[in-house]
Amino acid sequence: MGPSANTSDFNGWVAHDPSAAEGKMEWGTYQPKAFEQTDIEMDISHCGVCGSDIHTLRSGWGPSEYPLVVGHEIIGKVTRVGKDVKDLKVGDRVGVGAQSECCESCRPCKMQQESNCSKMTMTYGGRHSNGDKSYGGYAKSWRGPAAFAIPIPEGLPSEFAAPLMCGGVTVYNPLITYGAGPGKRVGVVGVGGLGHFALLFAKALGCDKVVAISRSSSKKEDALQLGADEFIATGEDPEWTTKNASSLDLIISTVSGSFPLDQYLNLLDVNGTFVQLGAPDDPLPSFSPFSLILRNLKIAGSLIGTRQHIQDMLELAKKTELKAWVQVRPMEEANQVLIDFEKGLPRYRYVLKN
Amino acid sequence: MGPSANTSDFNGWVAHDPSAAEGKMEWGTYQPKAFEQTDIEMDISHCGVCGSDIHTLRSGWGPSEYPLVVGHEIIGKVTRVGKDVKDLKVGDRVGVGAQSECCESCRPCKMQQESNCSKMTMTYGGRHSNGDKSYGGYAKSWRGPAAFAIPIPEGLPSEFAAPLMCGGVTVYNPLITYGAGPGKRVGVVGVGGLGHFALLFAKALGCDKVVAISRSSSKKEDALQLGADEFIATGEDPEWTTKNASSLDLIISTVSGSFPLDQYLNLLDVNGTFVQLGAPDDPLPSFSPFSLILRNLKIAGSLIGTRQHIQDMLELAKKTELKAWVQVRPMEEANQVLIDFEKGLPRYRYVLKN
Repeated sequence: MGPSANTSDFNGWVAHDPSAAEGKMEWGTYQPKAFEQTDIEMDISHCGVCGSDIHTLRSGWGPSEYPLVVGHEIIGKVTRVGKDVKDLKVGDRVGVGAQSECCESCRPCKMQQESNCSKMTMTYGGRHSNGDKSYGGYAKSWRGPAAFAIPIPEGLPSEFAAPLMCGGVTVYNPLITYGAGPGKRVGVVGVGGLGHFALLFAKALGCDKVVAISRSSSKKEDALQLGADEFIATGEDPEWTTKNASSLDLIISTVSGSFPLDQYLNLLDVNGTFVQLGAPDDPLPSFSPFSLILRNLKIAGSLIGTRQHIQDMLELAKKTELKAWVQVRPMEEANQVLIDFEKGLPRYRYVLKN
Repeated sequence: MGPSANTSDFNGWVAHDPSAAEGKMEWGTYQPKAFEQTDIEMDISHCGVCGSDIHTLRSGWGPSEYPLVVGHEIIGKVTRVGKDVKDLKVGDRVGVGAQSECCESCRPCKMQQESNCSKMTMTYGGRHSNGDKSYGGYAKSWRGPAAFAIPIPEGLPSEFAAPLMCGGVTVYNPLITYGAGPGKRVGVVGVGGLGHFALLFAKALGCDKVVAISRSSSKKEDALQLGADEFIATGEDPEWTTKNASSLDLIISTVSGSFPLDQYLNLLDVNGTFVQLGAPDDPLPSFSPFSLILRNLKIAGSLIGTRQHIQDMLELAKKTELKAWVQVRPMEEANQVLIDFEKGLPRYRYVLKN
């Protein structure tokens, strides 16, 4: 790759159509956004593999705009800095998550809640404010707004930091927002990429009790190692909902599709909150309002997190020596990694390494 | 009615079977709970008519325990005070709402959130902690725990105070809990008994904007008089959901059955809350989690309110000279009042008067 002039191409795993999701991305060049004086460039060292990557590759949330380069758990070293960038310099280690620009003028942005910006630029498959397409981190380099390139604290290994940029903050945000910590009992539905982070962070935040909830007990040992105090296998214990009634203050749901929402609500104690994460394709199931009403419950949604959340999370991860369970794979193997991901093989996050 | 010894009968409108809901309650005697030294008795002057009364009369929430005397918006003068009662004396004007006892030991009770007590005694159709049945206010007298008989501020007319005890606090609680007041934009779905209180209180609390939402515009004039700044007729304006997108911070839903939850959620701005009140027989409809996730919304439920809520609400009602729209009807006409209520005639609350 040559020096990054505005006209130079970048190299990465380019998707040309939905078949890319089946491991048919092609290594090649693509035209990054035009360099602006508020931008940085970085050499990517690591990029986590998130379910959203594959969903977008296959146009799962509506037609994606190909060509496309996915990846939004990006870590790298800054190689170029625009004149208007004040806080970063060449050589800094930074991370970029699922969002790489915001409008700074809508209501959420003015509230420093830019993760709900009404015109947000997703790190790939979106459009920057200058009209150019946004490209992600399955690549050699990344270029984009410095405002969303977040310094990684020294001592936090890049392979752990990478998947925190999206997967980590997606659970950290609702845990913090809904009061996870001492005195609180937290349940996590689903022991996958997001679920494993939720267990790690619920523990790191000092919750009184952390409960992993899954259909089968196949991941029980993992969940206990990740910090769960208890494990509920909903498919193996017909009594699970009554036995554990009113035992939790907060449930982080990382699953989608048709799940027994009424029964999960039954696990919540008075004033409890059920938070749905991710962006399932299916609507949430119909449910009885009685439990909401009788126990003053709430159902909430949450999307990624703000830059402040990311900074706070990275500090907590460093302080508690939080170790994501990652499997580092060479960037060259990205197509095979997608295939393995779809088989459910990651324990619990793949990280591509250049 | 003779002096209230433990063995004396009370007189009231007794329901013997579900036909009572059709205006077939019978005036007669019934055995109130045994008098305990923590109890008071009162001569009932007013009792509001709440939809729950009729629903319970017809065994709508499962079989009611007949004989039954309904009514839980009770105002009267204290006529007898148990030895252990410290805060009330004979002659005091008090009100009793939908709850007349709590366990004082469960988690919600210890949090002073006794309206979510897991062993709560509803004012009628329930059981007191001594095992005796609870009887309501379509009657000459009421007997029960002094702890739930709340002094009515001087100057607040009893016919206004009565329907506040359940209908009023049912909307006041979520309005306060979810931050209604200056700077907030509040929508109220349904202009009925509860909805009319929600409009009145949203206005009294100084919200920036109060919006009434109803299927037709038949109650538009009423809603504007009650304090609504705007009116949305969902059945008459096909564009209502897009035109009013992201325009509200809080929606109080007083309706049940199959309503367009997704479209109501669309009216909420970032961090907004949709609160479902009452206790519909039907489940809440299936809905897309996307709006919850993208705009950080919450769906909540709420049940009546605490004694503190009731006291605060009564003070606010007095201070703002809040006038419930009530139609006072003689207690003798209670059966006809039920029939009229079911026809949807109240504008917006019937109050029975002895």
